[in-house]
Amino acid sequence: MKTKKFILPENQLPTAWYNLIADMPNAPRPYLNPHTHQPTTVSDLSVLLAEELARQELSTERYIEIPEEVQQIYRIWRPAPLVRAVGLERALDTPAKIFFKNEGVSPVGSHKPNSAVPQAYYNAKQGVRRLTTETGAGQWGSALSFAGNLFGLDVEVFMVRVSYDQKPYRRLMMHTWGAECYASPTTLTASGRAARMADPHTPGSLGLAISEAVERALEDPEGTRYCLGSVMNHVLLHQTITGEEAILQMQMADAEPDVVIGCIGGGSNFGGIAFPFLRKNFCEGKKIRVVAVEPESCPKLTRGSFQYDIGDVSGYTPLIPMYTLGHDFQPSAIHAGGLRYHGAGAIISQLLHEGAIEATAIPQTETMKAGVLFARTEGIIPAPESTHAIAAAIREALQAKIEGREKTILFNLSGHGTIDLYAYEQHLGGHLQDYVPSDEEIARTVQQLERII
Amino acid sequence: MKTKKFILPENQLPTAWYNLIADMPNAPRPYLNPHTHQPTTVSDLSVLLAEELARQELSTERYIEIPEEVQQIYRIWRPAPLVRAVGLERALDTPAKIFFKNEGVSPVGSHKPNSAVPQAYYNAKQGVRRLTTETGAGQWGSALSFAGNLFGLDVEVFMVRVSYDQKPYRRLMMHTWGAECYASPTTLTASGRAARMADPHTPGSLGLAISEAVERALEDPEGTRYCLGSVMNHVLLHQTITGEEAILQMQMADAEPDVVIGCIGGGSNFGGIAFPFLRKNFCEGKKIRVVAVEPESCPKLTRGSFQYDIGDVSGYTPLIPMYTLGHDFQPSAIHAGGLRYHGAGAIISQLLHEGAIEATAIPQTETMKAGVLFARTEGIIPAPESTHAIAAAIREALQAKIEGREKTILFNLSGHGTIDLYAYEQHLGGHLQDYVPSDEEIARTVQQLERII
Repeated sequence: MKTKKFILPENQLPTAWYNLIADMPNAPRPYLNPHTHQPTTVSDLSVLLAEELARQELSTERYIEIPEEVQQIYRIWRPAPLVRAVGLERALDTPAKIFFKNEGVSPVGSHKPNSAVPQAYYNAKQGVRRLTTETGAGQWGSALSFAGNLFGLDVEVFMVRVSYDQKPYRRLMMHTWGAECYASPTTLTASGRAARMADPHTPGSLGLAISEAVERALEDPEGTRYCLGSVMNHVLLHQTITGEEAILQMQMADAEPDVVIGCIGGGSNFGGIAFPFLRKNFCEGKKIRVVAVEPESCPKLTRGSFQYDIGDVSGYTPLIPMYTLGHDFQPSAIHAGGLRYHGAGAIISQLLHEGAIEATAIPQTETMKAGVLFARTEGIIPAPESTHAIAAAIREALQAKIEGREKTILFNLSGHGTIDLYAYEQHLGGHLQDYVPSDEEIARTVQQLERII
Repeated sequence: MKTKKFILPENQLPTAWYNLIADMPNAPRPYLNPHTHQPTTVSDLSVLLAEELARQELSTERYIEIPEEVQQIYRIWRPAPLVRAVGLERALDTPAKIFFKNEGVSPVGSHKPNSAVPQAYYNAKQGVRRLTTETGAGQWGSALSFAGNLFGLDVEVFMVRVSYDQKPYRRLMMHTWGAECYASPTTLTASGRAARMADPHTPGSLGLAISEAVERALEDPEGTRYCLGSVMNHVLLHQTITGEEAILQMQMADAEPDVVIGCIGGGSNFGGIAFPFLRKNFCEGKKIRVVAVEPESCPKLTRGSFQYDIGDVSGYTPLIPMYTLGHDFQPSAIHAGGLRYHGAGAIISQLLHEGAIEATAIPQTETMKAGVLFARTEGIIPAPESTHAIAAAIREALQAKIEGREKTILFNLSGHGTIDLYAYEQHLGGHLQDYVPSDEEIARTVQQLERII
């Protein structure tokens, strides 16, 4: 029954983001301009992104100061609680200690505003008036709507049509924060019009929504910029606030993790919790295991190929050195919409390549079971994405029980699931199935990469 | 842009609930047994409620210790943040300082688990195995499902059919926590069967759902008890954790409120924030104004009658001395479902009668406008109920601006609105209307009271 929460005093809130690249034994290979195949420059990136974000993307500085204005907004929900999951421990009857960082306490319900707020801030500071972005499940679109509004920016979100229809609550959140949310494909862009002409009933796709959002930004180089919610270095940089807080809170709990766990889509919540702990490995000689958890239906880290690929379907992003299933890979329609992404960010991919982190894939029926157990023992209904981290933490705790030894586990609860309860209904009703792609299917999409570079 | 959050260190968390009755100049008149018209006893109440809750209901002790097990569960989300609403202040261009206590951070999304957890605890301790309750909008049903599950109790929630159909997310939350949620009227009870026979398509009502829940509890005196989410003294007692924390947090902010504001349905979130500040008025000679805000469509405090009435339609509760619109009053279908209740708790009614608190009624179009302004300046989408407190805080802040004087305002944000976004869609689409009951309508329902006592 006991649950211990560790509350960071406000004067101890971290004031800088941590850039792991400064401490990596080998930095990732550079991004490449998709046209010239030369390393991407700040000015290449600044066409799409605010210039300061472009600079952060390529920065090798160890710490980057969090602007005062961003810190003030972080304080709406930060510091996020660190909780000892005593109820879950008891249910598992394990000698392991399980801690989780609860990022679901933000007004959006997930970790996404950690990066949406600084992205909106730097854009506003530069004089940008409008932000465009895409969203699949809706978490990132909500976060940018929330953040853009606080800085007086117009926000346009291109939401994949099938999600737009299925998830009215996410759309309503964006409207409430004053954003425009369009069902993609729209008639506002050439790519949208082409897609609708080809198939008037198309459900849309994330790749197409990205194309639309980018196209809108490129149309108005004076006043509009595009924003991304994961994958890129500057996004993961902003998310390190999570791990920096967790380090201080674990000290308050007088504990140090043996293993740190996060679920992975593009890598934003995983990088956020993991990078500050990896600093301990690289700089203090610690041996903390760090585990990225992906869905079995989208196994980029465990079964993908490590090579250059583009971040979107249309090739607007730089070529990124990543573990990828190929940018045409179509994951099955699992409920963890935020994990249905074909590649992992460059830093995470490099870390995995060098054995500095581990990766594991878990089927969604197991993760949803873990989610229900967590909801019933810790009281918080986790997002379908976060159930992957919980399932991996449970595997670790049960292993500790078999081995009869102590172990301290920390995982990132990236968000709550109260706007994604349909997944629980499907699970509790016994309607969920697992889908694992065949080797041929993965090989086919990876082959396309050979055509890129 | 600046938002300041005041974080209470864990070792300063309040360890006792505060019973305002101990310090009131005049205690409320006693509850009466509806059959004998004699003052209600602990043993009268224990038929329905756990014995310790029945004792708390009639207690005159000043402080009641919070059991260690309850404190541990409170720590899943408590202390709830106290936030200085600098964004809202700036938008209003007011000299007033506005603070709010954010009770939306609980796993359920509102203040309701503050009482659901101890209610489940005392029932489990007594050996009760099953709890029954009713729910309208779904907040209380979710909270009891959450709490009952943590203590291994079965929970049965009778949810008004129209809400059950309109709010599938609430029902899914209850299922995820392992509770049974029935669309009321059911065929499980005599009152349910009778209602269905009279009208097979009945949308149900809160009164009917209460009757069903009580009936189920009475059927099994050994193993089942009934739980209530508002109105009664023990529920408001548990909610005082909110105000006790707020007092300490306001000290951290080096501020004292001139006015404390809460929205009011039965009185649970209002009493929770208000009672500890009223202690300052009664015991320390302070003159803090305390304002209860009700919807204009359900004006029990501003236009109701102060007399004995029952808490439910069927008369299972004691006769309670209250401001009431009559237990047959049918408020219009406003979105703030939690405020559609005909009467206010006995303590609050007594306070209003003696002029120790104020009351005001606000139309829902004004409250929803206030909610959108709050969402866009403070980032948090408030529950439709909580928008009433925000609207009143805004009125106070604008008045301070007119008068050109400083003022410190504190209100209770009873919950977030991300599961009630339909209200925002209706509002933003211009579809909301205000309904104010006529004098005749109120007179007609108040007249029924003469038949009771």
